[in-house]
Amino acid sequence: MDTFTKITAILGLGAALVATTVFADSHAAENPAVAARHHQMQMVGYHIGVLGGIAKGEMEYDAEMVSAAASNLAALARMERATLWVAGTEQGAVEGSRAKAEIWSDPDGFAKKFDDLATAATALVDAGDAAAVGAGMGALGGSCKACHEAFRGPKN
Amino acid sequence: MDTFTKITAILGLGAALVATTVFADSHAAENPAVAARHHQMQMVGYHIGVLGGIAKGEMEYDAEMVSAAASNLAALARMERATLWVAGTEQGAVEGSRAKAEIWSDPDGFAKKFDDLATAATALVDAGDAAAVGAGMGALGGSCKACHEAFRGPKN
Repeated sequence: MDTFTKITAILGLGAALVATTVFADSHAAENPAVAARHHQMQMVGYHIGVLGGIAKGEMEYDAEMVSAAASNLAALARMERATLWVAGTEQGAVEGSRAKAEIWSDPDGFAKKFDDLATAATALVDAGDAAAVGAGMGALGGSCKACHEAFRGPKN
Repeated sequence: MDTFTKITAILGLGAALVATTVFADSHAAENPAVAARHHQMQMVGYHIGVLGGIAKGEMEYDAEMVSAAASNLAALARMERATLWVAGTEQGAVEGSRAKAEIWSDPDGFAKKFDDLATAATALVDAGDAAAVGAGMGALGGSCKACHEAFRGPKN
């Protein structure tokens, strides 16, 4: 099992995000908009990790942490895209990018994916116990996966 | 959950461990909450750079970019702090942190600094030209400086 597969097997999509963005972060000449959205994805991955850790019982349930993680995920999903998904920063055009051209040719479809993430995250803001968090993780991970399948290119 | 338990739980997160491991090359075993807030600060810096570039005429004025940059800065300033400023992640306690203990001993003072950033950023959402952006840069930079002076320790 290679590292990426192992990480994905252990942790799912949050970790895949982390692995991807960390890989990109290690490249010095990265386009600044690409770097900024990688920071956004790192924050998404971190907060999904918090919720996933609670869902799995690896971390004790804490209502404030759950609410904060879910709220921050929603806020990250709702970031204005003009400064982050700058035209001309698709995969192949600039260093470190895995953004498919469809992000710009289908902006409504792309926006819908972030809306789905925000919706899935918001549903967890008041999750009252670890089981309730766990019940929402499928929709959360599904929103990551659906967006990556449609709008993220292969590894660089 | 007491502070120590919460820290231990955070440090035990699978995703966090992966992030730490994968980060090892460039970010020597950084605490995951510390890494997450560094990503937050990187996004803040990027968006201030966009506004600063427009104010200085290095980037062409674009109303959508200005509005997005200002909105994103406000959203970053309003991130829930529970997942990011985790107790026990002050400078000296964990790798990579420059967070002063005052962040936790004076949470209202710390919150005020983020409120000031959100206010300064929101004031620029509708800035109608480069000069209007420039006129707001002082308050924006001042909010960064004030927080760093009060709550950020020396370089590690």
